[in-house]
Amino acid sequence: MRFSPLVEQLMDAFRVLPGVGPKTAQRMAMHVLEREREGGQRLSATLAEAIEAVGYCQRCRTLTEAELCALCQSPRRDETLLCVVESPADQLAIEEAGGFRGRYFVLHGHLSPIDGIGPEAIGLEQLESLVAQAHVHEIVLATNPTVEGEATAHYIATQLAAYGVTFSRLAYGVPMGGELEYVDGGTLSRAFNGRLPFASE
Amino acid sequence: MRFSPLVEQLMDAFRVLPGVGPKTAQRMAMHVLEREREGGQRLSATLAEAIEAVGYCQRCRTLTEAELCALCQSPRRDETLLCVVESPADQLAIEEAGGFRGRYFVLHGHLSPIDGIGPEAIGLEQLESLVAQAHVHEIVLATNPTVEGEATAHYIATQLAAYGVTFSRLAYGVPMGGELEYVDGGTLSRAFNGRLPFASE
Ligand SMILES: [Zn+2]
Ligand SMILES: [Zn+2]
Repeated sequence: MRFSPLVEQLMDAFRVLPGVGPKTAQRMAMHVLEREREGGQRLSATLAEAIEAVGYCQRCRTLTEAELCALCQSPRRDETLLCVVESPADQLAIEEAGGFRGRYFVLHGHLSPIDGIGPEAIGLEQLESLVAQAHVHEIVLATNPTVEGEATAHYIATQLAAYGVTFSRLAYGVPMGGELEYVDGGTLSRAFNGRLPFASE
Repeated sequence: MRFSPLVEQLMDAFRVLPGVGPKTAQRMAMHVLEREREGGQRLSATLAEAIEAVGYCQRCRTLTEAELCALCQSPRRDETLLCVVESPADQLAIEEAGGFRGRYFVLHGHLSPIDGIGPEAIGLEQLESLVAQAHVHEIVLATNPTVEGEATAHYIATQLAAYGVTFSRLAYGVPMGGELEYVDGGTLSRAFNGRLPFASE
């Protein structure tokens, strides 16, 4: 048995979500249609609105529907400290760990020549003009502790070597091969405080 | 740090889905906005369309956007056998277990006087007119093997006692206190074949 075409389409559509296989997608479709039509309508509308309106902050490239995100608008953040992260989720993880009072720059990925992802795709021209204009003294290269994250950090340090900025990298307290987003706050906070100078060679 | 209002709203909206807590909702919102905007738009549109168009089959009350579901339209299903289930998910589980060639009636719940869910709310008047009109010889009362499911089965058997129909209930192969939807196909199939006569007392 299959459900009606529209119900089957809904199950398929839920599979776009991370970690959602056929069984979970079926549960989601049944739950919404049987018990949560109002919540489902709200999800549909909010999803459409967010996809339409949410873009990148013009300064730091984090996700926001405004021109500048709240953090970039805040006068209380130290603009001499800039933390470069791969994703808004990594930014959130660092913010929730606490202790960092600087600003951010979000790459939305890492360099991956094999996939055709070069410096422009991760905003490195924009990062360079930000560093050229702002009074940045230190850049924390908080890309993931993976091969690609390391390579991206090295690329950025080389690219921006002329600006007289100090580079640092999170201390290895974060597990190699892991993803920042899933590191617990305590470990992340300690790694942040123990960050080390970073040489581009 | 909080994300922008619209991104936060999107995270909240995902929490309508079953088993989705704050961390999973955040991952879903990030995944859609960072990597799957097209899939997210499809989910939004399909969700809105399904909530608008999907109702109950006029004969068996399963979920469908048509007047009659495909199964009720099929001339190959034995209309002398009627299986009463609590949900479309239970109906699917029985169909996937295989072996049953009759028709269904979907209650969308069970009797629960304490929650104000009486016979009309689960379609029992409609079930009675179906039995009065169709040539039903046996009704398999495949409500969940829970206190509420048992009580609902007894109520139906009493209500329809005058129609000279045989009642049966799934054999106990299904675990007490469990939910049909999550029983494996083999167990469910054996329980179906070993179904027992059901007395309304
Ligand atoms: Zn910003
Ligand atoms: Zn039907």
